[in-house]
Amino acid sequence: MIRSHEAGTLRREHAGQQVTLAGWVARRRDHGGVTFIDLRDASGTAQVVFREEDAAHDLRAEFCVKVVGEVRIRPEGNENPELPTGDIEVAAADIEVLSESAPLPFPIEGDANVNEEVRLKYRYLDLRRDAVAKAMRIRSQASFLMHDVMRGHRFEYVETPTLTRSTPEGARDFLVPVRLKPGHWYALPQSPQLFKQLLMVGGLERYYQLARCYRDEDFRADRQPEFSQIDIEMSFVEQDDVLQVGEDLVARLWKEVAGYEIPRPIPHITYADAMARYGSDKPDLRFGNELTDMTAYFADTSFRVFQAPYVGAVVMPGGAAQTRKELDAWQDWAKARGARGLAYVLVQPDGSFTGPVAKNLSDAEKAGLAAETGASPGDAVFFGAGKRHATQELLGAARLEIGRRRGLIDESAWAFTWVVDAPIFEPVEDDKGEQIGWTSVHHPFTAPKPEYADTFHDDPGSALANAYDLVCNGNEIGGGSIRIHRAEMQQRVFDVLGLSKQEAESKFGFLLEAFKFGPPPHGGIAFGWDRTVMLLAGESSIRDVIAFPKAASGYDPLTAAPTPITPQQRKEAGIDVVPEQETPADA
Amino acid sequence: MIRSHEAGTLRREHAGQQVTLAGWVARRRDHGGVTFIDLRDASGTAQVVFREEDAAHDLRAEFCVKVVGEVRIRPEGNENPELPTGDIEVAAADIEVLSESAPLPFPIEGDANVNEEVRLKYRYLDLRRDAVAKAMRIRSQASFLMHDVMRGHRFEYVETPTLTRSTPEGARDFLVPVRLKPGHWYALPQSPQLFKQLLMVGGLERYYQLARCYRDEDFRADRQPEFSQIDIEMSFVEQDDVLQVGEDLVARLWKEVAGYEIPRPIPHITYADAMARYGSDKPDLRFGNELTDMTAYFADTSFRVFQAPYVGAVVMPGGAAQTRKELDAWQDWAKARGARGLAYVLVQPDGSFTGPVAKNLSDAEKAGLAAETGASPGDAVFFGAGKRHATQELLGAARLEIGRRRGLIDESAWAFTWVVDAPIFEPVEDDKGEQIGWTSVHHPFTAPKPEYADTFHDDPGSALANAYDLVCNGNEIGGGSIRIHRAEMQQRVFDVLGLSKQEAESKFGFLLEAFKFGPPPHGGIAFGWDRTVMLLAGESSIRDVIAFPKAASGYDPLTAAPTPITPQQRKEAGIDVVPEQETPADA
Repeated sequence: MIRSHEAGTLRREHAGQQVTLAGWVARRRDHGGVTFIDLRDASGTAQVVFREEDAAHDLRAEFCVKVVGEVRIRPEGNENPELPTGDIEVAAADIEVLSESAPLPFPIEGDANVNEEVRLKYRYLDLRRDAVAKAMRIRSQASFLMHDVMRGHRFEYVETPTLTRSTPEGARDFLVPVRLKPGHWYALPQSPQLFKQLLMVGGLERYYQLARCYRDEDFRADRQPEFSQIDIEMSFVEQDDVLQVGEDLVARLWKEVAGYEIPRPIPHITYADAMARYGSDKPDLRFGNELTDMTAYFADTSFRVFQAPYVGAVVMPGGAAQTRKELDAWQDWAKARGARGLAYVLVQPDGSFTGPVAKNLSDAEKAGLAAETGASPGDAVFFGAGKRHATQELLGAARLEIGRRRGLIDESAWAFTWVVDAPIFEPVEDDKGEQIGWTSVHHPFTAPKPEYADTFHDDPGSALANAYDLVCNGNEIGGGSIRIHRAEMQQRVFDVLGLSKQEAESKFGFLLEAFKFGPPPHGGIAFGWDRTVMLLAGESSIRDVIAFPKAASGYDPLTAAPTPITPQQRKEAGIDVVPEQETPADA
Repeated sequence: MIRSHEAGTLRREHAGQQVTLAGWVARRRDHGGVTFIDLRDASGTAQVVFREEDAAHDLRAEFCVKVVGEVRIRPEGNENPELPTGDIEVAAADIEVLSESAPLPFPIEGDANVNEEVRLKYRYLDLRRDAVAKAMRIRSQASFLMHDVMRGHRFEYVETPTLTRSTPEGARDFLVPVRLKPGHWYALPQSPQLFKQLLMVGGLERYYQLARCYRDEDFRADRQPEFSQIDIEMSFVEQDDVLQVGEDLVARLWKEVAGYEIPRPIPHITYADAMARYGSDKPDLRFGNELTDMTAYFADTSFRVFQAPYVGAVVMPGGAAQTRKELDAWQDWAKARGARGLAYVLVQPDGSFTGPVAKNLSDAEKAGLAAETGASPGDAVFFGAGKRHATQELLGAARLEIGRRRGLIDESAWAFTWVVDAPIFEPVEDDKGEQIGWTSVHHPFTAPKPEYADTFHDDPGSALANAYDLVCNGNEIGGGSIRIHRAEMQQRVFDVLGLSKQEAESKFGFLLEAFKFGPPPHGGIAFGWDRTVMLLAGESSIRDVIAFPKAASGYDPLTAAPTPITPQQRKEAGIDVVPEQETPADA
């Protein structure tokens, strides 16, 4: 090593020792003939003192230097109790500039508010900042813990392919032309789902992987075109076995990284309850303020807007004091979410109701309203009316917004829940809102709960899945299911989804073929690793826990990828070759 | 869990217990009213006995079943000492078929010699075979050990991007069109080299990753379009620091997986010595039979063929007894490697020489030949003459072939060596063998040894690199270097390589930019994980240690990837869009 010690490890007991440090000039202060620099390396910082100004004369911020000197106790009164190395300083005898630094695009030290695109363009400088470096270390620590938990459960680590089959149905797959077979393409998989199920057919029994996944879609909502998941699959298991592994994993992570003991077992809430009470399939349970189902209450209403399949309400504590502008802003907020608006009443101090909806309610309806919704004088009550699921989602979003604006959310709290008993299918609607088919809520390999195994085909809308999502503070961090392992049942699911034999064959043919050879019952779970680590690290975006993230729309400010390609590149990659005597995979 | 016990864990002490097993029907034997099946799961097998034939009547090979029964000691004389469960059997009380199996394309049990493409098409069945499953488990175990070693050295695990910048120079990069920016492409990287160096600039100091890498090239020689490497980079280090980490890693792996203590320190051999003595930059040191440099010996020869810049020899013990056909085959072997042939003499029992070359040698040349080459009566001596490097490589290949044919290689031995002091550059030649430039032996970021730092530009052919390769039994399993960290030196390397400023900017611009901001001295190493695990597992192809490998030319018999794509897919991926107002990355 070029150095003898790491700067951040020096303590009183090193006093008198000759040390060699190497790192970066973090801060510099000149005091009449004496220059102090804070020398930073990955371990922390140490103060280095130069008696002769000459030696330190040319040192500027972020020069990389090697310093030889003696550790000594700081003069009394000069200690810095906030620094682990605050008792000592290094009296420099020699300094070597290992490399110089140009003027910085933004300061490394301090909490400068720097535009994110600039930070990402100079990510290698951003990584020198304390908070960013810490997030990287937390991610690394979390990886180690994850491996340790999975090893403890005797899982096998298997790397699955990322150059896989392209299918015309995989609309979000990235495609990859193959030079050696011009006109032929691989796809980058959205998950190792098919391969992990094949590993179960292969008798591996316990598989996991830190898997890179790809999705070529709009990722403005804090998504990335490539992302990581902890992918887990087990054979001969029931739902509870998978949940135990998942809980062991997050319990270890939160205990060792966040210092928090997750109460076990993690509570379960059904999907239906989560939607009814929180208007979300990933409810934030750090606060209450639940929705109220008002459908029965308004069953006989004469107010046309409330003559709907579902009417719900959510209370905004203190919301009656909002200005007209604030109340109008809620309408815009609702419209931005695709709703027509957000009906509301304001509960006045005397218990009377104001607001545009109040005059449409009968006296009887008004009489019981506060009791029914739990609203008190001074509160606002927001209403939603329409199709159940969409309206619950609107009110659930309003609940979250209310929680944020009213400070109802304990930001230091951790609230975990399993969301279970989700539907297998949800309706696909056309532009006019008419149902035209069914799609999978999870994915088409999800097994029904046993009581729906024989009926889901006839009544897809009522059938519940043997599926589970792990939710933390309103974020889905993991999800999985017990899988279908019988070809006959899998075919019935494809039938409900309207997937033709031909399409199913093109997309999943090799899995269906595998299921002919004694597939075991199996199930699994996958954790969104970026989001899990984001929560662990207390960050607000997954970009904060990714070493080199893309910006919005997949642009990389660091490398300027993606780029156009040259005609020569096109030619070499065989992009424009039409394969002879072969037809596309779906024909 | 569906089962109470794993089949392979049952022992005498379980006798009398009621157990539930789940697994596959491995073997079945019927003996007058009694049916025995071997039930296999991931833990091993147990014998299950059915008293009534009816219950077991329909069981065929690889049915997946659940069996409830009582463990009992086998009748005396029926024990199977070769099986861990050989003392017991399970008397079946109940059986449930979890799933049936169609007739198998090849048997799971036994060592049937199955065509590899068929095995890969049904890889999920192949994985049920003992040897294949064992290789997967070894790979998993090796991963755990690797993480443990790196954690012990306080390395941070960082995931680097696989969707990166496409550059026109990256002729082996896979390209990936981006739907959201039609006409723009990412590239899949051949390694995380640039990103790991950026992490060092970012002050991370100790990075590692199990990284997926991609190379779109001919991979008939046991290569894969995607492969894994253990990627390592460190700051403030010298060569020996990196070698220590590398040795710690392989020492742990070989000790715990292969039961072999690698003698430390692993010996070093210079690149020049390796070429001179073994004709290879990855010498197999499990046997001797070294090359002899005969250039000086034949300095004044009248034999035109030996009037060459380099003449070398390698002895084939007992080779004089080869038939004419065998000797002719050597000529074909040499021609297949691009040589004109392989000159040889045969040493007769009386010490005289025969063979086509013998008559061209002077008496004096013959007189000292045996002593010079170490040949004994009965041996053959093969000669190569021509350009040094290429001729050494030919003789090195002949040495390996001799070793294999003559049984000189101890297949149970492990021979590790570091190959150090490789040249930085090697000549690029045109079709006629004329030098037209220089290329990097490792990669363009490799630092020269300090003594060449100021001169490599003027004399590229003599300059040695601060680089190192780890070789095991003739396989390069790791390689790395101390990197250049000064932009000025990097530019001089690009100059030698004839890389224009424009090309360097397009390809590495962001790295050169990063080097302006106080880059630390750094270096690293990467281990080819597939090959390392292949050696650990005692396998002969990397395909044996990859769960779902591609066959030759990148074809996947399991999924039939790669495939043609549809016009709709082309359109959605924006493949044929010409970006407006932008030019390709190199223009």
